[in-house]
Amino acid sequence: MRTVDLIQRKRDGEELAPEEIVYLVDGYTKGEIPDYQMSAFLMAVFFSGMTDREVAAMTECMIRSGSTVDLSSVPGVKVDKHSTGGVGDKTSLIVAPLAAAAGVVVPMVSGRALGHTGGTLDKLESIPGFRTNLTVEEFRAQLQRIGLCFIGQTPEVAPADGKLYALRDATATVESIPLIASSIMSKKLAMGIDALVLDVKVGSGAFMKRQVDARRLAQMMVSIGRRADKRVQALITDMNQPLGYAVGNAVEVMEVSQTLQNAGPTDLTRLSLELAARMIYLGKITPTLDEARELAQRKLLDGSGYRKLKEVIAAQGGNPLVLDKFELLPNASGEHQITSPRGGFVSAIDAEDVGRASALLGAGRNTKEDQVDPAVGVILDVKVGDRVEAGSVLCRLYYTSEDHLEEAAAVVEGAFRIASHPPEERELILEVVS
Amino acid sequence: MRTVDLIQRKRDGEELAPEEIVYLVDGYTKGEIPDYQMSAFLMAVFFSGMTDREVAAMTECMIRSGSTVDLSSVPGVKVDKHSTGGVGDKTSLIVAPLAAAAGVVVPMVSGRALGHTGGTLDKLESIPGFRTNLTVEEFRAQLQRIGLCFIGQTPEVAPADGKLYALRDATATVESIPLIASSIMSKKLAMGIDALVLDVKVGSGAFMKRQVDARRLAQMMVSIGRRADKRVQALITDMNQPLGYAVGNAVEVMEVSQTLQNAGPTDLTRLSLELAARMIYLGKITPTLDEARELAQRKLLDGSGYRKLKEVIAAQGGNPLVLDKFELLPNASGEHQITSPRGGFVSAIDAEDVGRASALLGAGRNTKEDQVDPAVGVILDVKVGDRVEAGSVLCRLYYTSEDHLEEAAAVVEGAFRIASHPPEERELILEVVS
Repeated sequence: MRTVDLIQRKRDGEELAPEEIVYLVDGYTKGEIPDYQMSAFLMAVFFSGMTDREVAAMTECMIRSGSTVDLSSVPGVKVDKHSTGGVGDKTSLIVAPLAAAAGVVVPMVSGRALGHTGGTLDKLESIPGFRTNLTVEEFRAQLQRIGLCFIGQTPEVAPADGKLYALRDATATVESIPLIASSIMSKKLAMGIDALVLDVKVGSGAFMKRQVDARRLAQMMVSIGRRADKRVQALITDMNQPLGYAVGNAVEVMEVSQTLQNAGPTDLTRLSLELAARMIYLGKITPTLDEARELAQRKLLDGSGYRKLKEVIAAQGGNPLVLDKFELLPNASGEHQITSPRGGFVSAIDAEDVGRASALLGAGRNTKEDQVDPAVGVILDVKVGDRVEAGSVLCRLYYTSEDHLEEAAAVVEGAFRIASHPPEERELILEVVS
Repeated sequence: MRTVDLIQRKRDGEELAPEEIVYLVDGYTKGEIPDYQMSAFLMAVFFSGMTDREVAAMTECMIRSGSTVDLSSVPGVKVDKHSTGGVGDKTSLIVAPLAAAAGVVVPMVSGRALGHTGGTLDKLESIPGFRTNLTVEEFRAQLQRIGLCFIGQTPEVAPADGKLYALRDATATVESIPLIASSIMSKKLAMGIDALVLDVKVGSGAFMKRQVDARRLAQMMVSIGRRADKRVQALITDMNQPLGYAVGNAVEVMEVSQTLQNAGPTDLTRLSLELAARMIYLGKITPTLDEARELAQRKLLDGSGYRKLKEVIAAQGGNPLVLDKFELLPNASGEHQITSPRGGFVSAIDAEDVGRASALLGAGRNTKEDQVDPAVGVILDVKVGDRVEAGSVLCRLYYTSEDHLEEAAAVVEGAFRIASHPPEERELILEVVS
């Protein structure tokens, strides 16, 4: 087998056999295939795509490249949830406690902010003392004790993915659906889960701008899961405007607290309940999805999701009182309001712009090495469809330094569209792929 | 300027500015841009193509990466000829002496055999003593003295092309029209020429299998030449069956000698005269192409082309008598005949198969490091359109070792198609691009 022949066949649109994919990925991980051949292969994949069989073989390789977590000693069905990333997307912090309160074991592996999208780990770490770098032993023990644990990706898991991702990042081959699918699924499947609920975002604030791409990504991930004998369902959800009102880190934790007390934004609450219901259903807690929906709703209304999150915060070194007393969270020192230039209806709030503004204030990262400022962010005063007057506040920027304030304000100002007529209502949950 | 952004823009089909191409090619040549980014860029070019402006910028960069030859001290118009490579294509050895005999200065830079195609340098080196590794000083002096010199590419010329070619070879990015065009043109334009005649081959024995690709390549090379203020014309010619009867090295020199004595194959003679005429016309020896055609014909009939080649052989260390006494050339020790299984008309002779068979016997190279056997090769007894009986000899394999004889015989046998009706006549010169 010659690497150059495999690159050529992929370039020419042929399907490679599973053992040929293994040859490439294993060879690259072991350093036998050089970067320059792998990057040419990745670019060929960008253009030619991959079949479900190819992408499943690639995912398996990446799982085998590192250690996997064995959760068989923990009783119960283990169900994780993953979002492809959005703006104001704090659902993980809501659905994981709801599902865990309903009896699902939730080994939740999360990521960090990058570009204009936020990351669950950064949000959690805005809680003083909260530790995400647990050992596998601590992870397993906490799952057994309280049914929920938040952890960052460990370098021992799917190292081939880490190596490939770094290469993709430098060679403009990140935006390839099969490469995204195998990257996500390898990290998830290595963590000993039985089932997975995916939230595939589509729209201006998401990685996938077109629904057809989001659908293909969802189908590919569901297919990878099926080939690995895991139950996987995906929701395709709208990410044209931010989810909820808060975008940042500590500000999102505050909104999570409100939502778990049934006082959160409608869109965030609705999506969180549906995701939690899917986890409960895949976790075999209820025989039907409708019963799972009722159970998720009950766990929200009776406050047991809220208490579960407090329990987790305490278990991972944080002060659970932050959910009641927001002054215990990092707070910004300045506030800057953006007002509407005229009256009308909010017809669009570009999620990517809001995410970029929040990142400019310090809530995000341009490179993986950047530090995140937990206090800063953007809080919307309005959502798409709301009526505004000239001079009404559209959103507030919370900052700790004025360094990029002007730039952030300009970016976020451009995010709002005010029209004379109310916009057509848009679905939040667009499709289910299972 | 970030390399990854340039890769992404090319990937997404955008045109890069000349200074962005310079940044990439210069950066790569200097080692500032790593192999893995350049190979991803090359694969993106494979899929997205390049505009004439981009490819001209790339060519210029590659020329500037090394030294260029200054031929301004040599009086006369300098015209080279280049073929994209074929099977049995020995026209260089015929057209260069004809054009030089007509008064054109011909600084001919040639290449070596690779894969199933032959190389002019290997054919010349089958003449005992013939030297192609001349210094630039020797090259210039010989041009001044006799108006023709054959030389190999020197490593000082367009080293960026050499570095890029090695990377393309390992990453399945050789077959890209803009990359082929800039590679050829950078090496040619660096040699101090005023004009260039291109023979772009199309068909089974050529790199370009489709006429539309050959046309695009020809147009791109002509455009590069125009932007560099050089007169360039391209012929697109058929390479479905071998050119002439002889395929190999010494056997092709013998056919060259016959052709320069006006006793060569019709197709080879015709194409050589047309190419020589174009060189004479671009070399401003005659005011019209028709007069150039007459002059080329005259130089063939009066033997002055033949004498010019002898003069060059002598000047470059060979024995000019090889053109009269073929026993002075390396001769194979064995002959194996391929006969027709039935009577009919030869409807096709797959040039690539004949080239592969010749290479299997030792006349070609699989890798650049392979040694060429000057004596071996294939000589056809028939051409497409000829009538054959069952048992008629179709071709003869000349070998010095039986190692791959059986394999070569099987390959060459498969090259012939015998039909009951004569095939339609095929044009040899398909198009002119200028």
